[in-house]
Amino acid sequence: MENGSELGQIIDGPTNPMVTPLLNDLYQFTMAYAYWKAGKHNERSVFDLYFRKNPFGGEYTVFAGLEECVKFLANFKLSDEEIDFVRDCLPGSEEAFGDYLRGLDCSDVEVYAIPEGSVVFPKVPLMRVEGPVGVVQLLETPFLNLVNFASLVATNAARHRFVAGKSKSLLEFGARRAQGPDGAISASKYCYLGGFDATRQLKGNVGMICNVAAGKLFGIPLRGTHSHAYVSSFMSTDEIVDKVLRSADGKTTCEDFVSHVQTWLKKIQYSPSLSGIFSETNQSELAAFTSYALAFPKTFLALVDTYDVMKSGIPNFCAVALALNDFGYKALGIRLDSGDLAYLSREARNFFCTVERELKVPGFGKMVVTASNDLNEETIDALNKQGHEVDAFGIGTYLVTCYSQAALGCVFKLVEINNQPRIKLSEDVTKVSIPCKKRSYRLYGKEGYPLVDIMTGENEPPPKVGERLLCRHPFNESKRAYVVPQRVEELLKCYWRGSADEAREELPPLKEIRDRCIKQLENMRPDHMRRLNPTPYKVSVSAKLYDFIHFLWLNEAPVGELQ
Amino acid sequence: MENGSELGQIIDGPTNPMVTPLLNDLYQFTMAYAYWKAGKHNERSVFDLYFRKNPFGGEYTVFAGLEECVKFLANFKLSDEEIDFVRDCLPGSEEAFGDYLRGLDCSDVEVYAIPEGSVVFPKVPLMRVEGPVGVVQLLETPFLNLVNFASLVATNAARHRFVAGKSKSLLEFGARRAQGPDGAISASKYCYLGGFDATRQLKGNVGMICNVAAGKLFGIPLRGTHSHAYVSSFMSTDEIVDKVLRSADGKTTCEDFVSHVQTWLKKIQYSPSLSGIFSETNQSELAAFTSYALAFPKTFLALVDTYDVMKSGIPNFCAVALALNDFGYKALGIRLDSGDLAYLSREARNFFCTVERELKVPGFGKMVVTASNDLNEETIDALNKQGHEVDAFGIGTYLVTCYSQAALGCVFKLVEINNQPRIKLSEDVTKVSIPCKKRSYRLYGKEGYPLVDIMTGENEPPPKVGERLLCRHPFNESKRAYVVPQRVEELLKCYWRGSADEAREELPPLKEIRDRCIKQLENMRPDHMRRLNPTPYKVSVSAKLYDFIHFLWLNEAPVGELQ
Repeated sequence: MENGSELGQIIDGPTNPMVTPLLNDLYQFTMAYAYWKAGKHNERSVFDLYFRKNPFGGEYTVFAGLEECVKFLANFKLSDEEIDFVRDCLPGSEEAFGDYLRGLDCSDVEVYAIPEGSVVFPKVPLMRVEGPVGVVQLLETPFLNLVNFASLVATNAARHRFVAGKSKSLLEFGARRAQGPDGAISASKYCYLGGFDATRQLKGNVGMICNVAAGKLFGIPLRGTHSHAYVSSFMSTDEIVDKVLRSADGKTTCEDFVSHVQTWLKKIQYSPSLSGIFSETNQSELAAFTSYALAFPKTFLALVDTYDVMKSGIPNFCAVALALNDFGYKALGIRLDSGDLAYLSREARNFFCTVERELKVPGFGKMVVTASNDLNEETIDALNKQGHEVDAFGIGTYLVTCYSQAALGCVFKLVEINNQPRIKLSEDVTKVSIPCKKRSYRLYGKEGYPLVDIMTGENEPPPKVGERLLCRHPFNESKRAYVVPQRVEELLKCYWRGSADEAREELPPLKEIRDRCIKQLENMRPDHMRRLNPTPYKVSVSAKLYDFIHFLWLNEAPVGELQ
Repeated sequence: MENGSELGQIIDGPTNPMVTPLLNDLYQFTMAYAYWKAGKHNERSVFDLYFRKNPFGGEYTVFAGLEECVKFLANFKLSDEEIDFVRDCLPGSEEAFGDYLRGLDCSDVEVYAIPEGSVVFPKVPLMRVEGPVGVVQLLETPFLNLVNFASLVATNAARHRFVAGKSKSLLEFGARRAQGPDGAISASKYCYLGGFDATRQLKGNVGMICNVAAGKLFGIPLRGTHSHAYVSSFMSTDEIVDKVLRSADGKTTCEDFVSHVQTWLKKIQYSPSLSGIFSETNQSELAAFTSYALAFPKTFLALVDTYDVMKSGIPNFCAVALALNDFGYKALGIRLDSGDLAYLSREARNFFCTVERELKVPGFGKMVVTASNDLNEETIDALNKQGHEVDAFGIGTYLVTCYSQAALGCVFKLVEINNQPRIKLSEDVTKVSIPCKKRSYRLYGKEGYPLVDIMTGENEPPPKVGERLLCRHPFNESKRAYVVPQRVEELLKCYWRGSADEAREELPPLKEIRDRCIKQLENMRPDHMRRLNPTPYKVSVSAKLYDFIHFLWLNEAPVGELQ
C-alpha cells in the first residue's frame, strides 16, 4: 500500500491540467539539485506560507486556493519527459538526479492550513508545509501561484460585496478582460467564494454574462442576456419571420407579437404623463428586443443603451414587456452599460412607475435595473452617495484583474530545518521572517468578535479560555497587550499527511467554503472592515516566541563596524 | 473533404486545454439561441476586434495572442456534454438548437489580422472576423480573452526593455505572483515575445528564476539560481560531506574545496584595501555558497543579501568565486534582492574591482550584477538616474500582472451584417464604433518611419506610393492631413479561410514573432516611444469612409426634444 488510491481515497488533480510540477521557477530545480548534491535533500524542513500586507488598502484578506494546492500535491509526480526536460536545463547534472526526481512524491509531506474561505491576516501562516527540503522546495512556486491570485480575487469580491450591500445582486463578467483563460475561470470561482452571486434577487436566466466554463466546472449559477451587437444586428421588425408567441399558460396564442408590441409602444407614447418624453424610437432596437423576447419570454432582460436610453431603449423595452405581460410573462428588467448610471437608473425607475400607474400594470415599477460599465468599489460607493435605483451590479475588469492591486505578495519561507529554527533577516523589518515551527490561535473577546491572532512555539501550551495571556507584537518591543480569551480557535488544521488516506480535514464543496467566508466576514468587528481608515487587526506572538526570535536575530546578524 | 485534417494540414489546439467554446460568457449562448430562433444565425456578419486606448500611459501597443486564436477556431467544436450543459443553462430552449450547436464549426469563418508581434494603435482593427453571426458571436469572449492579456503583457515587456536599454539582460520571474497558472505561463511567453531574454549577456545556466513550463511549451531559454531558503537551510560548512571538486579541464582534483574557500576568505579579509570592510561573515551563507558552487561550478551565481550584502554576502561570494577560479571555473556573479540597489551594485562593483587589482585576478571586476525586488519601469528609470552597476534585471510581479494597468480593453464590435454597415453609438464619442467592412494600411514617410494608419471602405482603391491622400480623424472634423506615402503596407492578412488548407498566412514560430516585434519597435519614430509625454501616433479614415460614418451616425441617432 504505497499510496492513497489503493485504499480507495482519490483526490482529483488540479482544475487546470497545466498545473504540473513544471509550473515552477527553474531555481527550484537548481536548488533541488544542489540539495541533492550536498546530501541534504531529505532533511526535514518546515516552510510557512504567509503574506505581509493586506491588499486594497484594507485590513483583511480572504484565504483561497487551498483545495487546488491539495489536489496538486496529492498528484505530484514528474513524468519521464518532464525529468528529461529538467535535466536538459541543468547541464552537467548527474544522471542519478533523474532517478531521484523519478521517485519524488508527497508521501512524506504534511500540510497544515487555515480552512479555505477564512478571514486571515498578515504574518500568520496560511499554510505550514513540512517534509524533505528537496520536495517541499518544489512546492513553493505552484503553491504561491495557486494561493496568491485566488486569495486576492476572493478578497476583492468580498470588498465589492461590502460596498454594494447585502441586498444587491452582484454578477461577475470579466472573462474577456481577465489575465488569460485560467485567470477568467479561477476569477469566476473565487468571486463566487468571496460572496458574488447571480441568484439573490433575480430569478431564472436573467441577469448578466458570466463564464460558462466556470459554471460547468464549479457548479456556479450562470446568468446571461445580450450585447450591443445583438441589438445592432437587426435593421427592422420586418426581419422577424416567426411572430407567434404562446401564452405562459399555453392556453392562448398571439399570432403577431410584433404588431402587439407596436400597439403598446403607441399607447406608451401617447399616455398623458409619458407623452413628449420620446418620439420615434430606434427600430433596429425594437426588432432586437422583440425577437429576444420571443426567444426568452420568461426571462426577458434588455440592454437599453445601444442608441439612447430614455428616448429609445426604455420605451422599446416597456412596449415589449407590456406585450409579454398580456400573455402571462413577467419581464425581468433592463441593463444600463453607459452614461450617468445613477441618473439613468432613477429616470428608468420613474418611467417604470409611471407606466405602472398610468397603464395600470401592478408591479411594473419593480422592474430590475442592472448596471455595468467599468464598475468598481469606488464607483459603487459614488453611486450610493448620489442615490440610485440599481438592483444588480455587473462587475468585470476591475474585479477579475484586481485592477486596484493586481497581486498579493504571499511568500514561502523556511522557518526550521533538521529541528533547527531558521530566520531570514532584512534591513526592512517587515521582511524579517518569524522562525520556528509554530502553532497559531485566534482569540475571541466577550462580544464574540475575534480580538487577536497569536503564534506560539509548537510545544508551548495552547492559550486557555478565561486565562490571561500576554500577546506581543513580533518586532515592536513596546506593543503588547494582555488578553483574556472567551474562545480559542486553533487556526492550522491538517489537510495532508502523506496520503489521501491518512486522517485529515476533508476538502469541503465550494458552496460550503463560500458560506464560511460570508459568515467569517460578518463576524468581524465593523471597524476592521470599513473602507476608510480601517483599524488593523492585531497579530501577535507569545512572550516565549518573542524572546526566541530576538535571540536568534542577534545571533545571525553581523555586528557592524563604524568607520 | 470536410475539414483541413483530411487534407493533411493540422493546426494544434490552444496551449491551455481549458480554452474550449465554453470559455465564454453565457450571453454569447443566449444570443446564439435568439439568433437561431429568429432565423438570423447564418446571416453573414463582420466583427472588428480593436482597443480604444494604449495601455500604461503610452502611445503604442504590441499585438499578441493571434496564434492562440487561430488554434482555437481551427479546433472549434462543442462536445455533446458541453451542448447538454449549455441547454441546461437556457431553460425552455428547443431541442433542435442542440442539433445546431452540434454542427457548429468555423468552416465558414474568415479571419483577417495584423501579424502577431506588430506595433498597433487604437481603433485600427487587430482582427476582422467574418462569418455566420451565430458562430462568430461565440468567438467574441475567447478571442478577447486570448488577445487582451497577451497584448498587454507583451507591451509591458517592451516598455521595460525600453527603459532598461538594449545592453541589459531582462529576466521574467513572476510565476508566483501571476494571476493563476495560465497567467504565469502566458506571461512568460508574451514577455519573451515583447523583448525579454535570458541570453543576451549571461551565458550558461546563470541568471534567474523563470517558468519551467513556459520554457518547455514554447522553447524559451530558462535561467535559475537559488533563493534565501537555500542559504538559510545551511548551518555551517561542517554539513558539506562531499568536498571534492574536479577542475574544469578534468586534470586536477581539489580534495577539500571547503578549506580552499576558507583560505581565500582570509586572504580577502586581510588584503590591504579590503581589510576592515568586514570581519566575521555568516557561516550558514558561506556553507550554502560553497555547496552551490560544488553543484554548479560552471555557472555559479549567488544571492548575496540573506544576512548582509557588504559584510557577509559579497566577501563570501568572492571567496567561493576565487576558489573556483583556481580550478578553471569562472563564476558568473551575484543577485541583489533588497536594499538600495543602486548603491549596493556600485559597492559590489568596487569590491570586485579591488579584488581584481589586489589579488591579481584579471576580469574579476566584470562579475555580473543582477538586481531584483519589485522592479518596474519607474524603479529602473530611477536606478538609471542614480547611476548603478546592474547588468541584469529580474522583474516579476509588476511585469506579469501588469500592475500599473491590469487590463487592456479590446472590444469586438459588429460593423456589418448582410452587407449592411452597422454602427454602435454612445454619448462618449470614443466609444462610437467605426462601421463597415474595412481595409487598413500603414503609410510610411521619407525617413522610413510609419506616419499614419488609415482605414478605408473595403472597395476603395488602396493608397498609392507617391500619391497625395487625405487622412481624416474618424470623429473630429477639423483634424485632417494630406500624406504622400513613401511606402504602403496593408495591415490585415488572412489567417483563416474556413479550413487549415485554404490559402492563408502561416503561423510563424515564436522566435520570429519576437524578432518582428523588436524590429517594429526599433522602427518607430522615437517621440512616440518615450516614457514622458509621448506623441500620439495618428490613426485616420479615408475621406469617403469619414463621410459615410457621419451619414450613418445621423441616421441612427434619435433627435432630441428640448423641453
